[in-house]
Amino acid sequence: MQDPKIKKYSKKLEYSYAFGTYPTIDLLKLQSENVIKVYLKEEGFGSEGVDEIIGLCKEKGISFEVNSRFIDKLAVKENTYSLGVFKKYRCELDSDLNHIVLDQPRNMGNVGTIIRTMMGFGYRNLAIIKPAADIFDPTIVRSAMGSLFGINFKYFDSIEEYRKAFPKHALYLFMLKGAKSLEEVSFEKPFSLVFGNESQGLPEEYSKLGQGVFIDHAKDIDSLNLSIAAGIAMYRAK
Amino acid sequence: MQDPKIKKYSKKLEYSYAFGTYPTIDLLKLQSENVIKVYLKEEGFGSEGVDEIIGLCKEKGISFEVNSRFIDKLAVKENTYSLGVFKKYRCELDSDLNHIVLDQPRNMGNVGTIIRTMMGFGYRNLAIIKPAADIFDPTIVRSAMGSLFGINFKYFDSIEEYRKAFPKHALYLFMLKGAKSLEEVSFEKPFSLVFGNESQGLPEEYSKLGQGVFIDHAKDIDSLNLSIAAGIAMYRAK
Repeated sequence: MQDPKIKKYSKKLEYSYAFGTYPTIDLLKLQSENVIKVYLKEEGFGSEGVDEIIGLCKEKGISFEVNSRFIDKLAVKENTYSLGVFKKYRCELDSDLNHIVLDQPRNMGNVGTIIRTMMGFGYRNLAIIKPAADIFDPTIVRSAMGSLFGINFKYFDSIEEYRKAFPKHALYLFMLKGAKSLEEVSFEKPFSLVFGNESQGLPEEYSKLGQGVFIDHAKDIDSLNLSIAAGIAMYRAK
Repeated sequence: MQDPKIKKYSKKLEYSYAFGTYPTIDLLKLQSENVIKVYLKEEGFGSEGVDEIIGLCKEKGISFEVNSRFIDKLAVKENTYSLGVFKKYRCELDSDLNHIVLDQPRNMGNVGTIIRTMMGFGYRNLAIIKPAADIFDPTIVRSAMGSLFGINFKYFDSIEEYRKAFPKHALYLFMLKGAKSLEEVSFEKPFSLVFGNESQGLPEEYSKLGQGVFIDHAKDIDSLNLSIAAGIAMYRAK
């Protein structure tokens, strides 16, 4: 394959970047078939992480290059010693396992943190209802800290399209006006935990699709942060 | 009081800024004695939030001024219509209530999100062990979404100093090698939930100060995000 050009990330690009040593290691371990090339800085040599990267590249026949300029042109953080360039890929969701569903998520930091929490609590399947943040944006890759490469994700045009594709799943819809508090709910597997976005939450009419659930909190705040609400729900339902 | 100068925020400044309409409303409601002045943009006039700000300023005798230049010079987000300038203040912690303790927190977004979650779950007292992020940094004020003005916070030089000040509190120390899983713990009040920072967690020797607790997660991630771990713990312990 031809060497990738140094291009600032955009949604249209066919490849994206994993910045940093540990995300690059996860990329090499979990998505090696999609890695185009790895770039390293000489300053990182001798560290355990960079040694592991070189070992993985050799083992899997992936080319790597010492090229500070490539990294410096693209990295946001100063001390980035490794960068993995990977081809964007598609996945299918596992229909027997539990899902996380994000309805029109916008904030990339939240999406990345949710993906990291998914890995932590054993959720490996993420459905995203459009319009939504671009999951391959390096901001998401970075805040997921490599976990992106360990999960399946798929975009859907609407919640109805998702529902049709996975009719077996029991939907638990997290909404401020949910019918049951999280503490009262017992989760039937396979289930889908459905979360709205940061500004609007889920539309009220979604409540007919399954069990509405609220996480009880004081009136002093409008709502919990999305990634906090999702984290608590994933912890409780697992 | 003299009008504040347009100065980019720094830790040395004696005042700080609450950007945005709703954080400014919370500032006026909860810390009115510390408000120096409110700045508004004409574009915001007629909105419910800005009307509420004007009403609160009149009620509390706080001066406000229409001054787009002041806001534009300081605001990060484009659509900022309101800005509250406030004097930095000190608080005391309530010795009868539960505390959150952050040991050397660095990431300001995490600190802000934790403060918002505290408000949501009824925790009003935050101890911060130095060195630590500056709680009045506008990044924290913004990510706390006004909740900063509703809590008490206090800095301590060490965990021992904190311990001496609040000898009644039972300490629950969240660590990867904690002795009990969160699910097994019963929390004796008043308690302190103690969290380490993003990169190192809590030092192992802290475990002798109280009950070590871990939040069980898969080995696929090194640790949960700090604000997620704190959110789950606050939810479970409340």
